[in-house]
Amino acid sequence: MNIQRFSRHDKVVHIEWNNGTTNVFHYVWLRYNCPTARDPITTECILDALSIPLDITPSAVTVSSDGALVIEWSSDGHESRYDAFWLYRNAYAPKNVENVSPPLTLWTAETMSEHLPQADFHEVMDDDNALLSWLQLIHRYGFTLIRNVPTEPRSVLRLAGRVGAVAQSNFGDVFDVLSEPEPECIAYSSRKLFAHMDGAHRELQCGLQFLHCLVNEAVGGEAFVVDGFAAAEELKRTYPDDYELLSTTRVLFRYQGEDTDISAKAPIIGVDGSGRYTEIRYSHSLLYPLDIDHDLVEPFYRAYQQFTRIVRDSRFEFQFRFQAGDCELTNNRRVLHGRESYEVEFGRRHLQCCYLDTDEFLSRIRVLSRDTDYRDQMSIVRR
Amino acid sequence: MNIQRFSRHDKVVHIEWNNGTTNVFHYVWLRYNCPTARDPITTECILDALSIPLDITPSAVTVSSDGALVIEWSSDGHESRYDAFWLYRNAYAPKNVENVSPPLTLWTAETMSEHLPQADFHEVMDDDNALLSWLQLIHRYGFTLIRNVPTEPRSVLRLAGRVGAVAQSNFGDVFDVLSEPEPECIAYSSRKLFAHMDGAHRELQCGLQFLHCLVNEAVGGEAFVVDGFAAAEELKRTYPDDYELLSTTRVLFRYQGEDTDISAKAPIIGVDGSGRYTEIRYSHSLLYPLDIDHDLVEPFYRAYQQFTRIVRDSRFEFQFRFQAGDCELTNNRRVLHGRESYEVEFGRRHLQCCYLDTDEFLSRIRVLSRDTDYRDQMSIVRR
Repeated sequence: MNIQRFSRHDKVVHIEWNNGTTNVFHYVWLRYNCPTARDPITTECILDALSIPLDITPSAVTVSSDGALVIEWSSDGHESRYDAFWLYRNAYAPKNVENVSPPLTLWTAETMSEHLPQADFHEVMDDDNALLSWLQLIHRYGFTLIRNVPTEPRSVLRLAGRVGAVAQSNFGDVFDVLSEPEPECIAYSSRKLFAHMDGAHRELQCGLQFLHCLVNEAVGGEAFVVDGFAAAEELKRTYPDDYELLSTTRVLFRYQGEDTDISAKAPIIGVDGSGRYTEIRYSHSLLYPLDIDHDLVEPFYRAYQQFTRIVRDSRFEFQFRFQAGDCELTNNRRVLHGRESYEVEFGRRHLQCCYLDTDEFLSRIRVLSRDTDYRDQMSIVRR
Repeated sequence: MNIQRFSRHDKVVHIEWNNGTTNVFHYVWLRYNCPTARDPITTECILDALSIPLDITPSAVTVSSDGALVIEWSSDGHESRYDAFWLYRNAYAPKNVENVSPPLTLWTAETMSEHLPQADFHEVMDDDNALLSWLQLIHRYGFTLIRNVPTEPRSVLRLAGRVGAVAQSNFGDVFDVLSEPEPECIAYSSRKLFAHMDGAHRELQCGLQFLHCLVNEAVGGEAFVVDGFAAAEELKRTYPDDYELLSTTRVLFRYQGEDTDISAKAPIIGVDGSGRYTEIRYSHSLLYPLDIDHDLVEPFYRAYQQFTRIVRDSRFEFQFRFQAGDCELTNNRRVLHGRESYEVEFGRRHLQCCYLDTDEFLSRIRVLSRDTDYRDQMSIVRR
């Protein structure tokens, strides 16, 4: 992108690009974002936040022979050079740095049966492009199966470590999901687990959940997943009042144990100011006795049951059976997971689980998607 | 608390307590929260979310000889017994499970000089009551100094571990703050650090920050802290428009490195629906080029500088000098910290730092504050 022409105004400079579009930049914005303001090694901004006069103006504006915008400032004579492409990239239009990947695709059981998002362990371990494609699948669907993961214990950490730093939970870095005689949570029994999210009682629900099958010879125990955003959309379409209630009423999730008492209050359907889903927080086993307005109690339970019916509807619930070496990866803030009850009399069932923060996941996508050195992208002046 | 009398109505039962107050409970709420719905070991709710008819009614309501409310349900003849005190505790009035501690106390430099919240390492390590008092100080002020921490490396982990599980960051569990020749972040230089929060680029800013001084023989390097909520209050009082802008305009914080690209978009002053502060997110070094509406650019910078001036005002900035064995503990979502530049020619300065999630901190306060066994509090039926 090249600068075609520019014009100076009172507080701003207009820049016309060679593609015919125009952007406007405030002088104060430009001075705050002078490339020399960033440390060449740490990339952090090292400028004193109060050192820029709000009414700063240039004494000279030119375009250099290499196409950069060059400004000399009247207040102190400092010269700033802005790479044209950097300016173009950072013009104030919503850049949506959050959405580095393809848009979300909502899905149903049918979608999944026809086209299961999956990847191969060895490919994603060995090839950065395969890794990026896999991460983009997760970003798009919130669910993938990874095949051919070695069935040695703790192999799931190798896979998760390929994405980023594994999160520590109260269970440690990795924990076993198998039937125990006196389980400390119901996941460690052989009971049916209705579709749910993990960690609904935490301020920040677990980001990505890795669930790796080492052996599955038990009778029963079929796994299932549900796209929570698709379920919320269905509720919105069919029972808009119920949707409204679940997306605005904050309810308490809480887990108490001998040494633990963690709780979070949030709506079951999380929606941001622009109406986009931020998360689904659904875990009946951690729902605390409702503490909401008296008049909302009945409507809330009605809406809650309505949403639960959609989540359990076979149109939305995609069922599958774990093979040894499969690893399920879900965006735990969007996709619910569960399992049927099982019998271990004639064969074992052993899964291992770990979590990864959403920050780590998105960071990995951004780093793998870089088209230039990040210092160039940030217009860092190297010394 | 005892049940004085009760009266049955269409969908609810009214309960009058022996202190003269009355609470109303919906039948559907009662049935969902039947004590048998919780697993006696895991304490999780094991009831199927769809198993309760919304129009459920009792066939009989009585008060037992030990004062419990006993309901027999018409649909299936199941009998539920509710401990009176449990019912009283869980009546639907805002219980504010979040606010387990004394209310917040906003402070200035003067407040801190007159009464510095501090605690002794050995006391909080040995005595649960001292630990609780210390945690309540943190909850109230967002800042304390702990004295007499052993100056062996990694001692800070012993202190933090007394509260809960230490968080993993990209720096590991504990990391060193000392002057390095080519630092990967400016904290690892000897430069002045203006008051800031840590981890402003993360979806969830670091909760508690422990900063432990092993040795401080450098010239300069005075530490300072600022109550971000007090600074926000001052901005609201003096420049309400600026306050409005900083509490509603989402700006981007981002950290990029060779293998990292983590970002978060949030307002600098976080306020919830009830007008309470949720966090301050202020870190000039991680602020990314503003990407906001064109018309907001100038007003934003003005408001940002105004807030920065308050944060740096000597009325709000409390300064102190680390002694070897001191550990600063801040609520990193409320209290900003910084340091003056220093010289290491004639003496060393070495701090170690770790973080703890807010979930862990609040959990510890709740557990230490329990007045009964948590299973009784939850009215768990033990088998």
